[in-house]
This record gives sequence, C-alpha cells and structure tokens, in this order.
Amino acid sequence: MSVYLAGEIHTDWRDRIAAGARAAGLEVEFSAPVTDHAASDDCGVAILGPEPDRAWKDAKGAGLNAIRTRTLLRGADVVVVRFDQEYRQWNAAFDAGFAAALGTPLIVLHPPELGHALKEVDRAALAVCAEPEQVVDALRYVLTGALPG
Amino acid sequence: MSVYLAGEIHTDWRDRIAAGARAAGLEVEFSAPVTDHAASDDCGVAILGPEPDRAWKDAKGAGLNAIRTRTLLRGADVVVVRFDQEYRQWNAAFDAGFAAALGTPLIVLHPPELGHALKEVDRAALAVCAEPEQVVDALRYVLTGALPG
Amino acid sequence: MSVYLAGEIHTDWRDRIAAGARAAGLEVEFSAPVTDHAASDDCGVAILGPEPDRAWKDAKGAGLNAIRTRTLLRGADVVVVRFDQEYRQWNAAFDAGFAAALGTPLIVLHPPELGHALKEVDRAALAVCAEPEQVVDALRYVLTGALPG
Amino acid sequence: MSVYLAGEIHTDWRDRIAAGARAAGLEVEFSAPVTDHAASDDCGVAILGPEPDRAWKDAKGAGLNAIRTRTLLRGADVVVVRFDQEYRQWNAAFDAGFAAALGTPLIVLHPPELGHALKEVDRAALAVCAEPEQVVDALRYVLTGALPG
Amino acid sequence: MSVYLAGEIHTDWRDRIAAGARAAGLEVEFSAPVTDHAASDDCGVAILGPEPDRAWKDAKGAGLNAIRTRTLLRGADVVVVRFDQEYRQWNAAFDAGFAAALGTPLIVLHPPELGHALKEVDRAALAVCAEPEQVVDALRYVLTGALPG
Amino acid sequence: MSVYLAGEIHTDWRDRIAAGARAAGLEVEFSAPVTDHAASDDCGVAILGPEPDRAWKDAKGAGLNAIRTRTLLRGADVVVVRFDQEYRQWNAAFDAGFAAALGTPLIVLHPPELGHALKEVDRAALAVCAEPEQVVDALRYVLTGALPG
Amino acid sequence: MSVYLAGEIHTDWRDRIAAGARAAGLEVEFSAPVTDHAASDDCGVAILGPEPDRAWKDAKGAGLNAIRTRTLLRGADVVVVRFDQEYRQWNAAFDAGFAAALGTPLIVLHPPELGHALKEVDRAALAVCAEPEQVVDALRYVLTGALPG
Amino acid sequence: MSVYLAGEIHTDWRDRIAAGARAAGLEVEFSAPVTDHAASDDCGVAILGPEPDRAWKDAKGAGLNAIRTRTLLRGADVVVVRFDQEYRQWNAAFDAGFAAALGTPLIVLHPPELGHALKEVDRAALAVCAEPEQVVDALRYVLTGALPG
Repeated sequence: MSVYLAGEIHTDWRDRIAAGARAAGLEVEFSAPVTDHAASDDCGVAILGPEPDRAWKDAKGAGLNAIRTRTLLRGADVVVVRFDQEYRQWNAAFDAGFAAALGTPLIVLHPPELGHALKEVDRAALAVCAEPEQVVDALRYVLTGALPG
Repeated sequence: MSVYLAGEIHTDWRDRIAAGARAAGLEVEFSAPVTDHAASDDCGVAILGPEPDRAWKDAKGAGLNAIRTRTLLRGADVVVVRFDQEYRQWNAAFDAGFAAALGTPLIVLHPPELGHALKEVDRAALAVCAEPEQVVDALRYVLTGALPG
Repeated sequence: MSVYLAGEIHTDWRDRIAAGARAAGLEVEFSAPVTDHAASDDCGVAILGPEPDRAWKDAKGAGLNAIRTRTLLRGADVVVVRFDQEYRQWNAAFDAGFAAALGTPLIVLHPPELGHALKEVDRAALAVCAEPEQVVDALRYVLTGALPG
Repeated sequence: MSVYLAGEIHTDWRDRIAAGARAAGLEVEFSAPVTDHAASDDCGVAILGPEPDRAWKDAKGAGLNAIRTRTLLRGADVVVVRFDQEYRQWNAAFDAGFAAALGTPLIVLHPPELGHALKEVDRAALAVCAEPEQVVDALRYVLTGALPG
Repeated sequence: MSVYLAGEIHTDWRDRIAAGARAAGLEVEFSAPVTDHAASDDCGVAILGPEPDRAWKDAKGAGLNAIRTRTLLRGADVVVVRFDQEYRQWNAAFDAGFAAALGTPLIVLHPPELGHALKEVDRAALAVCAEPEQVVDALRYVLTGALPG
Repeated sequence: MSVYLAGEIHTDWRDRIAAGARAAGLEVEFSAPVTDHAASDDCGVAILGPEPDRAWKDAKGAGLNAIRTRTLLRGADVVVVRFDQEYRQWNAAFDAGFAAALGTPLIVLHPPELGHALKEVDRAALAVCAEPEQVVDALRYVLTGALPG
Repeated sequence: MSVYLAGEIHTDWRDRIAAGARAAGLEVEFSAPVTDHAASDDCGVAILGPEPDRAWKDAKGAGLNAIRTRTLLRGADVVVVRFDQEYRQWNAAFDAGFAAALGTPLIVLHPPELGHALKEVDRAALAVCAEPEQVVDALRYVLTGALPG
Repeated sequence: MSVYLAGEIHTDWRDRIAAGARAAGLEVEFSAPVTDHAASDDCGVAILGPEPDRAWKDAKGAGLNAIRTRTLLRGADVVVVRFDQEYRQWNAAFDAGFAAALGTPLIVLHPPELGHALKEVDRAALAVCAEPEQVVDALRYVLTGALPG
C-alpha cells in the first residue's frame, strides 16, 4: 500500500508514522513532498534560473514541487494530510481537495482544536486523527485487521 | 488476477473459494474486508477515540473500513459479492453498485431463492452463482479456459 | 437541481418530499424508478416476451428497469436513497454504491434504528435523515441557504 | 459561462465581482457556498438533529454544505477562489485542489503579500488577481476579448 | 431522452420506431447515422477530394461518418443497435462496443435466430428485442412506467 | 453542434467557415480563441499588472487565454484546427493534442504541402481539409447528410 | 507490452503472431479470449447450471466469457482484432468499439477484400494488416524501431 | 519514475538527459518515439504495403508511430517536450497538448528565444528549461530533493 504524507514539513510527524509502521511490520511505502524547507523554496531559481521578483521565484519553485507532488498524489492508495496551529498549510488543504476529487481515501491529522476550522476537510476524510500514532493504528487495521493494544 | 470478495462475513464461503482456487492451481490474489466482526465494529472507537453515541461509533468504524474496502474495490479485476438469507448485507449491495459504476466485472453469489430480491444486482453481474465452488469454477474457466469435471 | 429518489417503493415518502419541495418553492426536478411494483416486476415479460423461469423473467425486467435507473442516476445532481425495516432493498444499496463511485452527493433516509446495519452506506452519504421532511429541509438549505423554522 | 466563487465569506468580494460583471454586461452565472456564516455553521444540527459534541455538529453541517459546494464545483466552467489575511480558509484551498484535479480553470484572488504562502495554489491557477475588479476584467476578456480601459 | 439508432440502414426499422414513439407521445429525440447508403459511401471523396484507391475512398468517408456517429453516440442516453441476416453490420457491433465501454444503456434489436452469433453483444445489452415495436414499448416503459396493451 | 475553431488568427478562414455555414443554414455554434492578436498578447499585463520580463508577460497572457480556450475545447462537439505556412502555430497543435486526448472529433485544415510535417496531427483527425469551404461541406454532411453540389 | 488478440478463433492467426514475436525476441505478453469454441459455448451451463433455452445458455456463457475479455481488454496496451470471410465475428467488432472508446491503440487484421465492409472499424484503427506477419512487423517496429527485412 | 521524451529527433538532447540521469544515479526509465528519422518516415509502407501517394504513406507511418507514442504518453509519469528553432515539431506540441489533457506533469525544453511562440505550451508546463542539463536537475530534485551544485 502506497501512502502519501502531505502537509506540514516542520515537525517530525512523518518520522513518527514511518517508525510506527516499521515497528508494526506494515508493508507500506510512504512518500512525501520535499521536506527540506529551504530547498523547496529555492529549487525553482536554483534549477531554472534566477528571478528578481519573489512571485516568479515562487512560481518556478512551486512548479517543480508540483511535478513531485502530483505524481505521488495520483499514485497513492491513501493520502494522509497533516495540519497544525502554526502554519496555514494551504497546500495541505489543496492536496486534500485534489485527493478527494480523485476519490482517494483521505486521513486527516490535526490537533482537535483545529476541528472547526477544518470541518470541510475533515468531512471529506475517512478518518480524523489527532496523533501520528493513530495514523499508524489506522494503517495497521486497514492492512491487517488488528486493533491496537 | 486480483479478486475482491465482498459481503457476508459470518460463514466460510471465502475459505471455500480460496481453498478451491488453491487446489485448482489458479493464480488469483484474493482480498476481503476485515472479516472479524467485532474488530470491524469496534475499530473506530479503538483507534480514533471513544464515542458515547452509537451512530458516531459506527461512523468512525465505517470510515476506517472504507479505507480498506475502497482501495481493494478499485484495485480488483473481478469483484465477487455474497448475499445470504440471514443478513441484510446492505454493504454488499453497496459494493456491487460501486463495482458496477467502475465497470469492474461482477460475480454474485447467493442462494437461488434470493434471486427475486436481488434481481437488480444479479442483472448487473456477469455471473450468478449459488455455491462458492461455482465461483472457483468460473475463475478457473476465466483464467484457463478449462471446464469443470 | 435534479434529484433522484432511489429505494423503497411501498410508502409515500416520495410524495412527501415532492410536496414539501413544492410548498417551499424549490426548483428541483425529482425522478424515480418505476414505482408501480407490479409493472416493475412484469415489464420484462410483457415487453420482451414470456419466460417460464422466474429467474429470466426477473432478468428481463431488471434490464428494462436499469435502462431507466442508470440514466437517471447518471444525470442526477443529488441522489436520495431510502431504506426501511420491512424490505431488504438491496437495489437501494446498489444505487447508493453506484452514486458513491460516480462522486454524486448522497442523502440517505432511514429510521435511526437501521443505522448500525447501514453504517457503510451512511458513511458514504453527506446527510443521513430519519424523515422525508428532513430531506426537504436539506434540499432547501442546499438551494437557498435557508434554515427550517 | 458558470463561475463558482469559493472561499472567504466575510467581505463583499462576491458582490463587487457580480456588480462589475453586471456593469460590463457579461453573461455569467455566479454561484457560491452559503455565505451566511451562522447558517453555514448551524445547518447540520438545525436540519439533521442536535449534537452535544461540537465535532459532530460540524460534521453534520459540513456534509450539508458539501452537497451544495460539490454540485456547484463540478458544474462550474471556471472556479474563483479567494483568500485573505484574516482567515485560514482551508476549505478555499480544498476547493482549489478539487477544481485542479477536475481540470477546471482556476482564478485565485488574494492580497499579493499572501503570495508566498499560497504559491502552490497560485501555480495551479491560470490567473492570480489581487482585486475583485481584476477578476471582472479577466472574465470580460475571456468572454469578449476586450481589454480594460 | 436522446436515443441513438445505430446499425443497418436498408430497412425501415428507424421509421417504425419513430412512428411508434410519436404515436405513444414519448419525449424522445432520435438520432442516427446518415442513412443514405450512397451518400455515406461517397461523402469522403465528394468533400475531401477524389481517391483512385477504394481503401482510401473508404477511409475518407468513414472519417466523416465517424464525426457524426461519435458525437451522437457520446451524447446519447440510450443506444439501440439493429442487426439483421443480410448484412454483416460490423459497424453496428462496433457502436455497441463503444456504447458499452461508455456505460451507456444498450438495446439490441435482431431476429431471434441471430441470437447465438450475437451472444456477446446481447449480453452487454439491457434489453434484446426482435421487433422495432418492442423497442417502442421498452422506451415507453422506461419513460412512463406504462406496460403495453 | 458546437464547433471550436482553433489555430491561426491572421487570415479570414474563420469568417469563411461561418459565412458558409450560415449560407447553408446549418445549426452550428462556432467559438474561437481571442483573434485580436494584440489583445491576446497584452491581456495578461493589462489585467493582472505589468511585467518587465517578456517571459512573465507571456505567462500571464497565456494563462488568461487558456481560461477561454480550455473551456471552449472541453465543451466542443467538434474541433477544427487550422495550420498555415507562415506561422508555427504550436498552440494549434497543442489544442489538437488536447482534443485528441479528450476523444473529441478533430478536423484539420491546412495547405496540402504541409501534410508531411503535420502527419501525426492529420492521423489523429477524422478529416483533413485544404480549404475552409471543405470544412463547411464536412459540417453540412455531418449535420444533414447532404453532399455538396 | 500487453497485446490482446481479439476475434476469430478458428484459424491459427494467434499462433503465427506469437511465433513471429518469439522469433523476433519481442517482449510482448499476448492474451486472448478462450479459443476452444466448444468450451466457450458451453461454459455457462457447465458452470452455472443447465438451461433448456438456447438464449439463456448463450447468456450464461457470454457472461463468463466477458469476465475474461473485459479484464484483458481493459488491461491491454494494444488490441489486435481479426476478421475473416467466413464468420460474422460481431464480438470482434464489439471489442474493437470497446477498445476505441477506451482510447487503446487498435490494429485490425483482415483480408483486403473485407475493407469496404469494415471501413468504420479500419478508420478507428492505427494500422490495418492483411497478414499476421504484418502484425508482428508492426509490433517489432513499435517496440524496437526496426523495420522488416 | 517513467519519463517520456517527446519532440525533436535531430540533436542529442535525449542522450544528454539520459547520461546526466545516469551520472546522478536517478531511477528513471526514459522512453521516446522512434528517433531514426528514415525509419519513422518509412515504417508505414515498409510494413503495411507501398503507397504511390505521399499523403497515404504518411498516414500509414503516422499510425504505426502513434501506437508507440500513445502507449508511452499514457504510461508516463512525466512528459518532457523539446522544441528548437529549426523544425516545426508540430507533433511535439500535439504530444504536449495530449499530456496536458491527461493531467500528466509536463516539462518543456527550448531555447529562450522561442518563448513567445511557445507561450501557450509553456503555460501548460510545470517547468520550462533551456538546456537538457536543467531537465536532469529538475528530475533529480523531483526524485531526491537535492539541488544542483
């Protein structure tokens, strides 16, 4: 099963999910956007040439990042999208909408207090988790039928 | 060939099909929903947190189960759906409709006396079987061209 | 907005929804399967020729009914599916699965006590109602933004 | 041409676009989510029954709102999505991702200073505007070929 | 309801269906390929320039005919395909396969003695008729729920 | 029937087709990209703000033009694409590829001496014309079955 | 590359193509319908139970055969369809139409004298061959770029 | 990741990309049209029989080439399309449009001075490169997140 981990790139949530899945012996292939924030911002001008204007620097970078994320999103069996308090993560919500339109099962991960602001995204998901470990438990159940504990 | 076995989880029909396919040496990869009834009912609250209200307990569980079943349904070459007298198996009929809309070949398995109640589902199927062994015979023919006996 | 009313054809739930929508002045075009039970059972043999065997009588009838229901299902903006205690309504669940695979918004209508048996279908729906009048309220809100009362 | 105006419901940007289009004599049919914030929050419990838990109140409401927004999104020729500083508008970004996956032309509207945070969304758009009047100008050009001024 | 009448262009079956539908007051818009055999054969060279080689004359003509038939096939709610003893009507079977892949409801019309040769096509259809009047009866039932007689 | 006229905007071929269709009394709704070359080049900066760099001026303009052309391409029953000696018309070939992927019937219009350079595009078309009047003849035949002369 | 060989099952054309591909060292995985005529006719009643009526015997058999052919058709990179003088092969033409609607590249194989009767099918194909060895040459060119001889 | 390299077949750009990807240790499977110009021109008549008329020679050849290119285009994760000053490369632009309609990420490669003529194609791309080495850098970033240098 291929699982795309979309969203916030500042905390270690992807590592916790990957470690949990490994510990549980799950056959999951995780993928993610480029999680090096500086590289993800600078890739456009580093590869396609410098831009004096920030908007076009961003456009070039976002294009390259989209080559990766679209390919992974379209190939994923399940998409997990993570939101937190600190960042607006509009691209996370964009990815969730993209997955929803494709009909790909969606798991949303966020602190419960964001629930109201994320109600439309949560409604499109098949599971809403507060902690990365719940995502692991969900994947284990989906793959093996085993409950936690 | 990947075959998804949808529907009733109380009898041993899946085992009979798998055993028959193995005996016939067929290259089929079977998949199924979680067939442990209690786990399938409790998974939502066990993984995503308790719910006092039965309806939301069910909603959480059904969401997790759908991550599995949607993924398997979409990846299946053939979908077999089983009905019996005792259970209403609305989710079996739901899966049959889902497969029909995807254009995935459908085999329906049920006692002949359910034929009238299932006539719309049967009409959408490419084969209607009464016994699991007929499903095995159908898969053998589809894969090898060999007739039974 | 075109709304297809799938499922149980023995009670007056379609009339109650249509009357409510008319009273609320909603611009909705309702459609439904043939709701004359006898015609729906006999159409195959009446039009395509007699069958001694019940199964083939049913197959012929279900084919004709499917010409109608598939066309309406595919053209609907919203699909409402009704279940009740008395009938198994496997074709209702089939239609719900078909709509879900198409990505068409789904409203499910059933007595609350059927919730557990219908949990997979309910989870695929965007609204679960207990009474036809709630369906009218939902359609009014969807079309006009007005809340009841 | 049908244009869906997604996103922020607190300022008068939809009115400014509609007024501009009317003044320009454009044949555009605008649609939008329910823009009455209270109704949009309360619709679920008002129509489908009360919920003590905020999360399920939100789930019920978001479901009803999605019946409207999915139908409009899927039927739109062009989708305009508005972001501003004050609100996180994750559902706006969700709608943008949904439209992108459908291949529907997307216009994004936001203050230029949000450009970096929205770079992935902007990259998926065919036009990025700072003011509602630019959206009108864009629609006029698209429909008539006339430039502003 | 739009109904495309594909297949054999040598007998009056289309007229009989149209007359029957008119007599029954059905709201059906029928369409068909060009039924003037000579025009259908010569259109390519008459419009796109002469060809000494029969194969390319046919290729030019078949291309023009396909502009019409593909457009009508894709826009049809129901496709009726007629076969008879005298002609091989490979294009009729081609149209049936095209409709089947689109998921468009299919009605097949042929003398019963062709049933074995047409068994794959018949199996893909939702109704198999022997006479044009049965097609009218089927359309009336589908549209109005009324049985013949 | 809706016909999109893609490609070269420097000669009067669109007018000749429209005049011919009018003279023939055909029910065709023609659409086209913005054919005012200067407007089509300048629209981006005129509406979305000035750009010192030609590449970004072009990107802004091409985005606005694509809102129009994508919408028309997707809604067309038939796409006519015109090439000539003088211009490279890469966007014409792009539109032809887009239409081919959608399965929309394609008519290509170009001087015969371009045939070799356009062989891949011609092969994807259902008719290859040298003169606009042949396009009119083709549309008349497709709509009415009448041959020219 | 997976190639589905549809159509006539009475001559050795499939063997000739397979032998030629093997001799040329091509990496092609060929598939086909069940080519044992008797098994293909009898499978329905042998597996799903006897039928006194030929039409239903055929319906049962055609359903089982369709499980195989639909799965192979949908998974094929290229579809080759063979016609000959002796048989009507309506199912071959049906498969060709099915492949055309899916956008799968089509190669048609038939004696040249059938060209006129098959002109619509030939027009939908990317290559028309008279001999199985030409199909091998075509596949070799497609896979390796090598010309024959 | 599978990458299809479409367009101009006269210079060594494909080799430079392949060599760069190999040097960078990227797991990319490159594919391309037949790049032997003479074979690509002659394949039709060499395999399917001689044609006195150049147009039909081209039609036969283009058909065979399309079997290859359509299959590769549809299976590609990323499509790279190359244009240069010397050739019109209408088929390159056709392939770009085809990929755009499929939603496949597109990288365009051309000398900057072609930017204006290619503005519609560039706008549909997620990256515009001037040199093959930039394509390698883009693929490395997409696959590994590493920036050049």
